[in-house]
Amino acid sequence: METKAQVLYDFAAEPGNNELSVREGETISITNQNIGGGWVEARNSRGEVGLVPEDYIEINQAKPLPSGGSAAPLDLSFFDSHTPAPASTAQVDVAQKETPVTPGLPSSSPDEPEGTETGKTSNNAWQSGGTGHPQAYQGPDIYPYPCLIDISGAEDDEWDDEWDDVKSSGGYAESDAVDGGAMNRGGAHGSSMKIALNKFPGFSKSGPELYLLAKQPAKGTKLPIYMGEVGPVWAYPDYQLDCVVADPKKGSKMYGLKSYIEYQVTPTTTNKPVNHRYKHFDWLYERLLDKYGSAIPIPSLPDKQVTGRFEEEFIKMRMERLQGWMSRMCRHPVVSSSEDWKTGKRKAEKDETVGVMVFATIEPEGLQDLDMIEVEQKCEQFSRFTKAMDDGVKDLLTIGNEHWKRCTGPLPKEYQRIGKAFQNLSAVFTTSGYEGEATLTDAMTAAGKTYEEIAQMVAEQPKKDLHFLMETNNEYKGLLGCFPDTIGVHKAAIEKVKEGDKLVAASKITSSEKTGMAKRASTMSYSLQAEMNHFHSNRIYDYNRVMQQYLEEQVKFYEKIAEKLRQAHSQFTTM
Amino acid sequence: METKAQVLYDFAAEPGNNELSVREGETISITNQNIGGGWVEARNSRGEVGLVPEDYIEINQAKPLPSGGSAAPLDLSFFDSHTPAPASTAQVDVAQKETPVTPGLPSSSPDEPEGTETGKTSNNAWQSGGTGHPQAYQGPDIYPYPCLIDISGAEDDEWDDEWDDVKSSGGYAESDAVDGGAMNRGGAHGSSMKIALNKFPGFSKSGPELYLLAKQPAKGTKLPIYMGEVGPVWAYPDYQLDCVVADPKKGSKMYGLKSYIEYQVTPTTTNKPVNHRYKHFDWLYERLLDKYGSAIPIPSLPDKQVTGRFEEEFIKMRMERLQGWMSRMCRHPVVSSSEDWKTGKRKAEKDETVGVMVFATIEPEGLQDLDMIEVEQKCEQFSRFTKAMDDGVKDLLTIGNEHWKRCTGPLPKEYQRIGKAFQNLSAVFTTSGYEGEATLTDAMTAAGKTYEEIAQMVAEQPKKDLHFLMETNNEYKGLLGCFPDTIGVHKAAIEKVKEGDKLVAASKITSSEKTGMAKRASTMSYSLQAEMNHFHSNRIYDYNRVMQQYLEEQVKFYEKIAEKLRQAHSQFTTM
Repeated sequence: METKAQVLYDFAAEPGNNELSVREGETISITNQNIGGGWVEARNSRGEVGLVPEDYIEINQAKPLPSGGSAAPLDLSFFDSHTPAPASTAQVDVAQKETPVTPGLPSSSPDEPEGTETGKTSNNAWQSGGTGHPQAYQGPDIYPYPCLIDISGAEDDEWDDEWDDVKSSGGYAESDAVDGGAMNRGGAHGSSMKIALNKFPGFSKSGPELYLLAKQPAKGTKLPIYMGEVGPVWAYPDYQLDCVVADPKKGSKMYGLKSYIEYQVTPTTTNKPVNHRYKHFDWLYERLLDKYGSAIPIPSLPDKQVTGRFEEEFIKMRMERLQGWMSRMCRHPVVSSSEDWKTGKRKAEKDETVGVMVFATIEPEGLQDLDMIEVEQKCEQFSRFTKAMDDGVKDLLTIGNEHWKRCTGPLPKEYQRIGKAFQNLSAVFTTSGYEGEATLTDAMTAAGKTYEEIAQMVAEQPKKDLHFLMETNNEYKGLLGCFPDTIGVHKAAIEKVKEGDKLVAASKITSSEKTGMAKRASTMSYSLQAEMNHFHSNRIYDYNRVMQQYLEEQVKFYEKIAEKLRQAHSQFTTM
Repeated sequence: METKAQVLYDFAAEPGNNELSVREGETISITNQNIGGGWVEARNSRGEVGLVPEDYIEINQAKPLPSGGSAAPLDLSFFDSHTPAPASTAQVDVAQKETPVTPGLPSSSPDEPEGTETGKTSNNAWQSGGTGHPQAYQGPDIYPYPCLIDISGAEDDEWDDEWDDVKSSGGYAESDAVDGGAMNRGGAHGSSMKIALNKFPGFSKSGPELYLLAKQPAKGTKLPIYMGEVGPVWAYPDYQLDCVVADPKKGSKMYGLKSYIEYQVTPTTTNKPVNHRYKHFDWLYERLLDKYGSAIPIPSLPDKQVTGRFEEEFIKMRMERLQGWMSRMCRHPVVSSSEDWKTGKRKAEKDETVGVMVFATIEPEGLQDLDMIEVEQKCEQFSRFTKAMDDGVKDLLTIGNEHWKRCTGPLPKEYQRIGKAFQNLSAVFTTSGYEGEATLTDAMTAAGKTYEEIAQMVAEQPKKDLHFLMETNNEYKGLLGCFPDTIGVHKAAIEKVKEGDKLVAASKITSSEKTGMAKRASTMSYSLQAEMNHFHSNRIYDYNRVMQQYLEEQVKFYEKIAEKLRQAHSQFTTM
């Protein structure tokens, strides 16, 4: 029996591209589901066969989402203006990654054991999932992700294309120049979250008191906090959402006058790829920042660099970083499972529970109110820790950057010169006319070539290990840059609560409002603690993983050099 | 039965030093022969016991030389003014070497097989010894070495001490400064032999014609040349002479106002150590240069540097280079077995067979005279080869020097900083207060320490491998620097022979003198060819050996790093 599908949106075939025009509501038969690239081959009722964008249709018998996610494919369909269009896109020659390579992504961690002590809590309400990475690595039982990137209201032309117009050139050279074609690292990457305080309604005037003194409870999904073994923790969903960013393609519009890069974004839940440009990620970033920025560090996206002559490397790097950013967002229990984003058609921009009002949705379940001394102590502790880690991470990035330069610049050049010197001397020796010379010169030439090979290995090694160490630290630098603002919101709230008596005396607030303020500051503290515990859990996982990977690759590297040299050595005859 | 010994020279004990005064002709009993440092413990006929310099006595039953060498211990005794005097010498803290470490010394090459093809000749007269290294590595059947360094006529005070006065300071900084305390390498090392042409009697006026037109045959030992498989070769002695330079001691004289370094020089034939200062080596160098410089490259001694703050390293390095120089001289069949030096008491300075007259002692045995075309071709060929090798060696030295600087300077600093950065970040992590933190931080700290260890290893490695590669090339640079002068003598002779007809026509020489000149130019060519074959044989051996050693140490180095990193990796727990 043929697979049938419902057409969800009109699609007009581009002539000469083997496409099939379809209309909303039409039923078509899928003739080949394995075309790839976001396309399927289908036949309409008139027997015409051609390619149709996968996202424009709903395959009838396929309900890939086990629970609560039936709306997701529908939501994905809002990306209709970004469906792959082979006629105007060209494959960019970047190695296709089969699995995400960003360190810390559980989906690329096959050796993940079933839960660790730290990940388990005694609270029944927080159901630990089967794939028990401590807190961070359990997916949601709902599939909100596609809605999270619902940009239905946005027409393509509304965006300003300037910053991802790959035809711009020369911009790369303006950034910190790195020898040997390495990408700019750790320098210009946005290190702080863009909380524009006046973006939060009333915040510029009244700061956190908008929430502290709010009259009515916030609408929308509640965000529960439970007491776990490590302290207050977010509610972690049972399933791990992830999202693969891959397959960058150069697209163009305005008859080729403007070009851009599209990335294929595939949620692991639906496995349906949709195409996105950088600006779409940026829109999502802005939404998440507005919504959660006061409580949760929402790291900036990778730099909006224009590319220079290293276009392909740049695209690959940005894709990797978008992948890292996406995965981090998917891994966050609050960000990934927020009910707000499940409402589908509702315009995300109209959400009023933004800024400090996010705290109004947080519900510490069965937890006693914290006194202000503890609230303040915790805040100070996190402030110190994040500052110290920020320093440590920046230090490592600086050193790593220098090491990168040395390993891709002068060091391999030196090995190459050593190799050449051996070979040159060996070439001179062959002219001696002396009998038995070849016993030395053959081996010496081979040794010279070996050092040239080592030069190559040295130059390529940083991409295999240091790169990931740098990327992870870069990511953490971005995250840590968000904390001063987040902690600032908390400190402002603490100050406001401390003024409570004075405000009551001045009849600016009532006594019960004062009590409410303290309770809400306690909620904010639970939120910060849950977030810190989430941060710590992720950090331990990420650094453990990246350190292991780094050392593993370093071991392979040095072993390979030793093996090459052993071979070179064996060519010499003992005299 | 006690060992008796004859006292050869008067020795006056220094008070308070446990020494025993003895007189020439006295018979003493050896009570302890294992004192070391050139001393034995002895008892005289009056029952007094004390230390006596080993070289001042002849132990009765000990005739360590199997053949022809009975005069050697006597000759060694001429070093009486340099006998160790514990009262005024202080042990310099330089690692005592058990065996010479200079590459290319057969005595430190236990895996030397019994002869190779290239080392055998069809000529019966050249008896290949049992330890058949091709040509270069067979010792003499006579033991001329002690006589070679007979400096009997020289009183200690005749020497100018300025250049080995270790109390001079600051001089090291004047030479090419090298990061990280490495010795100055490849820069100032004398690169040419000091043939002062006017040193050869009559040379400045008449050049090689002194020999070409000589009326009477030269006195002294003949130096035969035979036809070997590789071409004309020197007569190689059956036994390998070598000489261990070790045990540098700081001595002083003029009541401590002047200090100097004495090295213990022990010929492997007699095993009797004698002490020498740099200037004594220099005297020997000058003698050899006068005697053989026209025919055989006599490389300069290591630099007469004054030491700065790296005194011990400097002393060790100079000792090693003196060792290398000594060994090369010992290895040379002509230099090591020259009959001239066997005459013992005769003042070496009075030898008249110096300069170009050395060719008069050379006898190509059973070899046909070469025509001038072949003589000229050979000369050109050697000139080209030595020039090209000189360039190649200098190139390698330049690169090696840069590599040395990097390996002892910025590279280990970078590894250290990486190690510190890991440890710092780990230290920050421990302050998180998060449960289960130690699973990461312990491993991360260990990884950091590992990189600090690697830094140390990287910094120390050049001394283990690059050093010997540099030293060997440095030695060859010195040797190659002699060839332009040596070849110049040959070219001048060729020119003179070419003028033969003109000279006859002008009645400046007779026709038979012209014929004699051509014959002698042929002899010079045989000499040059024998010397080049000796050079090639040594070169192949030396480079084979040093390349093997270099690669072997490099393999160990990289394997050790890999092993350390593997251990560091194993400390991380998979999560």
